[in-house]
Amino acid sequence: MTGDSALKTEDTTDDLAEAKTVGLSDDRISEIIDDLNSEDDTLLENDLQGLSLADTVDLIHKITPEQRSKLFALHGGSIDPYIYVEIDPGLRQDALSAMPAQKIAEIVSSLDSDDALDLLINLDEDFQKDIIRKLSAKMRVAMEEGLSYPEESAGRLMQREYVAVPQFWTVGKTIDYLRAAAPDLPDDFYDIIVINPGYHVIGEIPLSRLIKARRAEKLENLTLDETHIVPADMDQEEVALIFRREGLGSAPVVDADDRLIGVITVDDIIDVINVEAQEDILKLAGVEGGDLYRAVLSTTGSRFRWLFLNLLTAILASMVISLFEGTIQEVVALAILMPIVASMGGNAGTQALTVAVRALATRELSSSNMLRIIWKETLVGTLNGIGFAIIMGLIAGLWYSNPALGFVIAIAMVANLIVAGLCGAGIPILLQKSGADPAVSSTVFLTTVTDVVGFFGFLGLAALFLS
Amino acid sequence: MTGDSALKTEDTTDDLAEAKTVGLSDDRISEIIDDLNSEDDTLLENDLQGLSLADTVDLIHKITPEQRSKLFALHGGSIDPYIYVEIDPGLRQDALSAMPAQKIAEIVSSLDSDDALDLLINLDEDFQKDIIRKLSAKMRVAMEEGLSYPEESAGRLMQREYVAVPQFWTVGKTIDYLRAAAPDLPDDFYDIIVINPGYHVIGEIPLSRLIKARRAEKLENLTLDETHIVPADMDQEEVALIFRREGLGSAPVVDADDRLIGVITVDDIIDVINVEAQEDILKLAGVEGGDLYRAVLSTTGSRFRWLFLNLLTAILASMVISLFEGTIQEVVALAILMPIVASMGGNAGTQALTVAVRALATRELSSSNMLRIIWKETLVGTLNGIGFAIIMGLIAGLWYSNPALGFVIAIAMVANLIVAGLCGAGIPILLQKSGADPAVSSTVFLTTVTDVVGFFGFLGLAALFLS
Repeated sequence: MTGDSALKTEDTTDDLAEAKTVGLSDDRISEIIDDLNSEDDTLLENDLQGLSLADTVDLIHKITPEQRSKLFALHGGSIDPYIYVEIDPGLRQDALSAMPAQKIAEIVSSLDSDDALDLLINLDEDFQKDIIRKLSAKMRVAMEEGLSYPEESAGRLMQREYVAVPQFWTVGKTIDYLRAAAPDLPDDFYDIIVINPGYHVIGEIPLSRLIKARRAEKLENLTLDETHIVPADMDQEEVALIFRREGLGSAPVVDADDRLIGVITVDDIIDVINVEAQEDILKLAGVEGGDLYRAVLSTTGSRFRWLFLNLLTAILASMVISLFEGTIQEVVALAILMPIVASMGGNAGTQALTVAVRALATRELSSSNMLRIIWKETLVGTLNGIGFAIIMGLIAGLWYSNPALGFVIAIAMVANLIVAGLCGAGIPILLQKSGADPAVSSTVFLTTVTDVVGFFGFLGLAALFLS
Repeated sequence: MTGDSALKTEDTTDDLAEAKTVGLSDDRISEIIDDLNSEDDTLLENDLQGLSLADTVDLIHKITPEQRSKLFALHGGSIDPYIYVEIDPGLRQDALSAMPAQKIAEIVSSLDSDDALDLLINLDEDFQKDIIRKLSAKMRVAMEEGLSYPEESAGRLMQREYVAVPQFWTVGKTIDYLRAAAPDLPDDFYDIIVINPGYHVIGEIPLSRLIKARRAEKLENLTLDETHIVPADMDQEEVALIFRREGLGSAPVVDADDRLIGVITVDDIIDVINVEAQEDILKLAGVEGGDLYRAVLSTTGSRFRWLFLNLLTAILASMVISLFEGTIQEVVALAILMPIVASMGGNAGTQALTVAVRALATRELSSSNMLRIIWKETLVGTLNGIGFAIIMGLIAGLWYSNPALGFVIAIAMVANLIVAGLCGAGIPILLQKSGADPAVSSTVFLTTVTDVVGFFGFLGLAALFLS
């Protein structure tokens, strides 16, 4: 057996060279596209039947928007409703907006409450109400309550289908109950939740503990000492941190009165961790999530805003340079060398900034070590500043046979790298303290500082010592 | 109850304002540091006893290196061995290198095989052998086999403690076996693995399915149709993708002969997902993992290498500028405006590059949609290029009352943003195709291109039209 055993491949003969790829191979995608473009509808129906859920998601992501519309229009009926949960939120919105409310209501009704909610949240509010009106009473209440929780909160993430039993039961009684109630229980669960008559959570029992215990054992003897109860309004990033810190399989969610209302499982959390880590990297570059699947115009617009901010920074830097017009005209070498100082500051600052932004997100950076980290980054900036000052001082001095020029660029380099270290760590911390998202705007602030200090320092010193 | 129920707080009275923080509060950390610095050793012992595992890890991360050494030296005995698994790998290495091999062998023996292996991998090879020699025969074999798998492979990640049963058993017989064998089974597991007499994996059964089934039910009727078997040499990033795609709780790991040798569980995967996503964001900025906890000199050194590459890029850009020394001396406005064109190209390119690097990592970008994405990014660059050309053309033209200057900067802007889009998406794809890690070196290549094109385009056009 080779790697493909892990892949849940289709029944077609698979190219062995491709066997190590996770998911749908590019060759298989081309074949399916050919089938989609053919006159014979049964070809694609067969393809879709042979695909696992994750492979179908891959397919939908990787084909063109035109192919996607065709697929949804002609073969929407053969698509597992759960597909709509798994595809990129932008594509999901496109697909659902084109459907009648009745059809979406049917899809929603076939899903667990957390997935159903995912489908509704990005739709237009009126359309949302339209769909909710067509649901069963139970699902309607679930959706309305779910929507009442803040975005990206535990309440939105949880599912309402959980397994809870009273604290005074024995293992045997619990297993008998699980067998009898099987059709009404969630398909998969990792823990059972032990509650008191007031629906307050006493604790959790992992299934592996339950199944290893003797039938006569009381549940209260098995309940984990550390059960991590999540309030419904807790932010999902916070919930993910708890799961990661504690290695949880699931956690009960409670309302404001501490009553059990749902459960969050680790597979929901994997998505959150992935999205949150991904979000930071994208935000630092001024890109929005789902960008890959957006249409050209929508991507252009969302990127324009960020670039416009950067343009303002660049213009500010130009204004700083223009203060020294006379000096540059006298010593044109300054124009040639000045981008080096600014760019080294920007790069050194970005290093400190990236470390700080990630450490803030994972809570590894907080008040207790904040000053120490800022101090360390300033020191690192100083040391690297001295190193690059020597290197660039020598290069510039020799290039233009002008020791004073070497001296000026060296001093400017040290100064800019010290500031870069200080601000690279300091700006994200200040933004976080003031309630802003450090990943979103840190870079623009940092570039402004390193550009202004870089150009002003270098050209200012040059004006003093060289002209 | 407030948010702190989710936190497994200590027994001390907790500041309510801090209750929403995940983990150890900063106030609590200061108290513990005071206890660490006091003469009375029992104070700190009491503190440590009251801390959960995750809180102790927090504490060790957030104190200074001096406080850390003191903690390990004086209170190493009161520290749960599992702590060494959970702390930052750099700190772990520091702590373990200072211990005698015998002590580490004791720690290793008390852990599951996957965690034990984690402890050994970063140690000096001779020291590793020393420790392994002191282990029990069973653990010794496990460690030696584990070390024989490639770094970051499934074989390193898996634990050898799993629950496997023969395919012909019934649910009842399986549960009876689990009860009888309880002391020898792993503490927690999500699935049982069904095998044939040759130790080949037939499939997995989630515990929730097993516990809901009647005792007389045959296991083969419960086995999941899609069981994802992982070969021991599969890269951990690949394993994480499978877990994420398929929402797995655990997956059996097999050797080259397809025989079951271990199991990977979702909590191991959460760490991998986190590390891999984190790694990309750090690599893009030229920072290594664990940077936060490194000493100043070590951080300075690792950052220096990256900055040095960037210095070469900056010097290359200066050489391009120096080609146009004469033109700049004539029209000094060029020196003032030229950084704008280069910096806009760099920022626009970084946007495209970040999207491409992440999409390559998640396999959302592959041969089948590669050309489409490059084409899209080039279009986005063109459109934003036109937008910023108009804006900067007007600003420059009006600022210097020189329409030709406006025209020159506009053309240079469009050209640089087109190149930025093309190369921002193209460079990571080319690096990936050539077997390199696109996150590591993309940025340097991109900056080189956007700097050279930005300066050469702007100054070259100026030389043609303005002088």
